[in-house]
Amino acid sequence: MLKLYEMADSGNCYKIRLLLTQLQIPFERIPIDITQGQSRTVDFLAKNPNGRVPTVELESGEFLAESNAILYYFSQGTRLFPRDPWEQAQIMQWMFFEQYSHEPFIATSRYWISILGKAEEYREQLEHKQEPGYAALKVMEHHLNSSLNNQFFVGNCYSIADICLFAYTHVAHEGGFELRGFPAIQAWIQRINAQPGYISMAQKDS
Amino acid sequence: MLKLYEMADSGNCYKIRLLLTQLQIPFERIPIDITQGQSRTVDFLAKNPNGRVPTVELESGEFLAESNAILYYFSQGTRLFPRDPWEQAQIMQWMFFEQYSHEPFIATSRYWISILGKAEEYREQLEHKQEPGYAALKVMEHHLNSSLNNQFFVGNCYSIADICLFAYTHVAHEGGFELRGFPAIQAWIQRINAQPGYISMAQKDS
Repeated sequence: MLKLYEMADSGNCYKIRLLLTQLQIPFERIPIDITQGQSRTVDFLAKNPNGRVPTVELESGEFLAESNAILYYFSQGTRLFPRDPWEQAQIMQWMFFEQYSHEPFIATSRYWISILGKAEEYREQLEHKQEPGYAALKVMEHHLNSSLNNQFFVGNCYSIADICLFAYTHVAHEGGFELRGFPAIQAWIQRINAQPGYISMAQKDS
Repeated sequence: MLKLYEMADSGNCYKIRLLLTQLQIPFERIPIDITQGQSRTVDFLAKNPNGRVPTVELESGEFLAESNAILYYFSQGTRLFPRDPWEQAQIMQWMFFEQYSHEPFIATSRYWISILGKAEEYREQLEHKQEPGYAALKVMEHHLNSSLNNQFFVGNCYSIADICLFAYTHVAHEGGFELRGFPAIQAWIQRINAQPGYISMAQKDS
């Protein structure tokens, strides 16, 4: 069976659980506590030399890392990855946006505040994350508002672009980001909650 | 003709020039000086609401941003993107690795030192970039060394994974990173320099 090396509270790991559950692909969860250095052991670095979760292990024994690369791999040929090349390109655009302009601010703030519980210790760094984090949310709100048809991020269909952006956006408050001023994002979160096969980040089993 | 909004010294923009030149796709270069705020004007934000280069404009008037998404779009169906799904997944893995674990350290250091010329002003931030930047180079060196057949990053063929990683690695010294301890990376850089249609970052026209 497919193995998912992951930390339950990580949004990047939740992306994979949500995708695999919605695609009805069975998987085994193997907990790796990054706060205890478990992603930097000799044993784990042999699986992913970059020392990060999520990492998946196929039945063949091969490994794949980077949450959005894993989303890409398992969504190929499914309803969660469009067939149109221009829509595919936009999926990529949003996934790279998420890893460069969104995750380093919103997810990192959440990690310091809600995973490590060290908001006071990281107070100064947290302040620097506010402006770029809100800038990312504004780009998302603008896109969802730019056409009445933008129910989802690409091609008006739920896809891995939505899964990718949803993971840390729906828990942005745990990183000190307030979604009250972003009604289009809030409505989009509700649409994702209503997708067939949806599971929450806290859900233990699919 | 395809328009490339770009800054000549940016490695992310150079990726696109290198790809399009090697694929013999004609394009027009439109300079955007990010140090002068030209990527944050009302006019430019209408093209890319995230305010970054590179951004391409198709003849249809549609826009695409994020360097690695642009690499993906134009390489589809060419020799620079493999056909095998597992190799495609590994391409994605390396491209997300580059944007998350490599570019924010090596490219940002280079920006402060060699584009802005403000090494002294950013001295403390630059120190924090050293460890994760070298960690990324070690992951690359390890991969190129892990098999005698790893002439390139994926499937032993030159691909967009190489273009993506090459852009800032070959000018890492301009960001204060020394490649002397990375012989496999150095040999890989030489192999890329020898690819058909190679152009340097400084080259004015293809």
